[in-house]
Amino acid sequence: MDVNESFAAGDRRALARALTWVESGLASGEELLKKARGAARARIVGLTGSPGSGKSTLADRLITAVRQRGETVAVLAVDPSSPFSGGAILGDRIRMMRHHKDEGVFIRSMASRGSLGGLAGATVAALTLLEAFGFDWILVETVGVGQSEVDIARVADTTVLVLTPAAGDAVQAFKAGVMEIADLIVVNKFDLPGGERVVQELRATLEFAPPRPAGWKVPVLTTIAADGEGTAKLLAAIEKHHQHLQEHGLLESHRLERARFEIASVIQQLGQEGARKGEDLVQAVASGKLTPRQAAARLVRSALEPGD
Amino acid sequence: MDVNESFAAGDRRALARALTWVESGLASGEELLKKARGAARARIVGLTGSPGSGKSTLADRLITAVRQRGETVAVLAVDPSSPFSGGAILGDRIRMMRHHKDEGVFIRSMASRGSLGGLAGATVAALTLLEAFGFDWILVETVGVGQSEVDIARVADTTVLVLTPAAGDAVQAFKAGVMEIADLIVVNKFDLPGGERVVQELRATLEFAPPRPAGWKVPVLTTIAADGEGTAKLLAAIEKHHQHLQEHGLLESHRLERARFEIASVIQQLGQEGARKGEDLVQAVASGKLTPRQAAARLVRSALEPGD
Repeated sequence: MDVNESFAAGDRRALARALTWVESGLASGEELLKKARGAARARIVGLTGSPGSGKSTLADRLITAVRQRGETVAVLAVDPSSPFSGGAILGDRIRMMRHHKDEGVFIRSMASRGSLGGLAGATVAALTLLEAFGFDWILVETVGVGQSEVDIARVADTTVLVLTPAAGDAVQAFKAGVMEIADLIVVNKFDLPGGERVVQELRATLEFAPPRPAGWKVPVLTTIAADGEGTAKLLAAIEKHHQHLQEHGLLESHRLERARFEIASVIQQLGQEGARKGEDLVQAVASGKLTPRQAAARLVRSALEPGD
Repeated sequence: MDVNESFAAGDRRALARALTWVESGLASGEELLKKARGAARARIVGLTGSPGSGKSTLADRLITAVRQRGETVAVLAVDPSSPFSGGAILGDRIRMMRHHKDEGVFIRSMASRGSLGGLAGATVAALTLLEAFGFDWILVETVGVGQSEVDIARVADTTVLVLTPAAGDAVQAFKAGVMEIADLIVVNKFDLPGGERVVQELRATLEFAPPRPAGWKVPVLTTIAADGEGTAKLLAAIEKHHQHLQEHGLLESHRLERARFEIASVIQQLGQEGARKGEDLVQAVASGKLTPRQAAARLVRSALEPGD
């Protein structure tokens, strides 16, 4: 049985191997992906928020809640490209690993390395694969506040912004522009001082937020992920949002957005490949002999193969 | 006298107009930029750090310090693309505006809008223009923690990371991977509790950081920008870093990196233009008829003009 067949038969090792193909940009991955697109739909949930807000613990609790309902779940943990910060993040995620032996749970860490900003195209491709594999839920956890947050909102069906009662957490989310991309806001570590105040602040701020598609009202929920408190309510709220998307025909637009994202990532990659090879063109731009547009045109043309 | 000539003659209104051309991607801007590249060098300083760390106030103080030495300075304040957070940021920057009537100071806000992640190509193009205009110093202030920080480190000669004594600020910088891109670290608001502890933590962490080019040791400085305390020392440290770059022939690599960045931005833009026009291709990828690479190749080819 080849990998394609094992994959279709639901073999998790085949899935792991297929993800590696996709991450490495191998042609075999491209082919598998092409077949995978347009397959059965999972509920894709993005978990985003500042480091230390407890996203991994929350993901761990959501896994348990989903499994209690007898549904399956895959988690994509997107690491920032920095090798320097690798250790700290791994530590946060160790808890999730207790689900590792559960056949209904699949956890994978992916680096955002190689992407000009935020989420890599490989992550979105991995989402497609996981969807095709038939998981009921896919959680995508991103680290850091910034472009990956905006990206995840584009590709996930439901984006959950995780904050803490820490003073300034909400202000920071507001300033970084991630408030307006959240479909749900969770104040985690609600047992810390200031929780009620932050919830009030968030609700007040949301009054002034631009209207969301089809009149969706962004709820503010509270959790203590370390104790599992509030997880069931969060899962119910995510489902409610999914229903809202379904009722208003908005799921399809996320699917198209994922395709758009993958295409844009390939173009970015073409540019990076080209820029590495085309040092003489870079030099020509730096010294004023070519415009960036002229250099870009030459680079892309040389990166494209005649068969593309 | 046309804009090109007025620009060459140092007319600030001509500069403002030229920047608008560049921001709008007009062909006249492209031509002016082409001539501008390879012109006299300014010291380009990136100011980065979390919202609320006081970057704008610090920039304001640096402007004063530079002017006291009789040198000129331009400030590019890069706003995140969110229209939602616009107000808050403007407020932070009002103080800087008191330099507005000083002929030796030029301040411009730019949106990072339109870029897939972080810094827009237009910002880097604006840097080139400001350099050509002959400013001695260019400060680039970015908002938010994330990709724009990594980008600014690529294009600035010296990157200053601004933190506060707030617990977790250093940890956050560490986790977001911005610690390793800083050439200088400033603990601003040093009069707040915890300052000395954060400085110690940062110094301890830097011991384990990967080595910097040509053995540069990242200094940790302290400022109270609201009082102007520490600004002179900061300026001296920036100059020291600039000398270090010069002595080791590292300035040229930043200039090339700026050209590389501009080229990559154009390619990104081609992809975005293409993706808007090519909805049928997006649909083809989403339904598994084309791979993202095939769609990307078609989009880029259609976006390129024969003359490019």
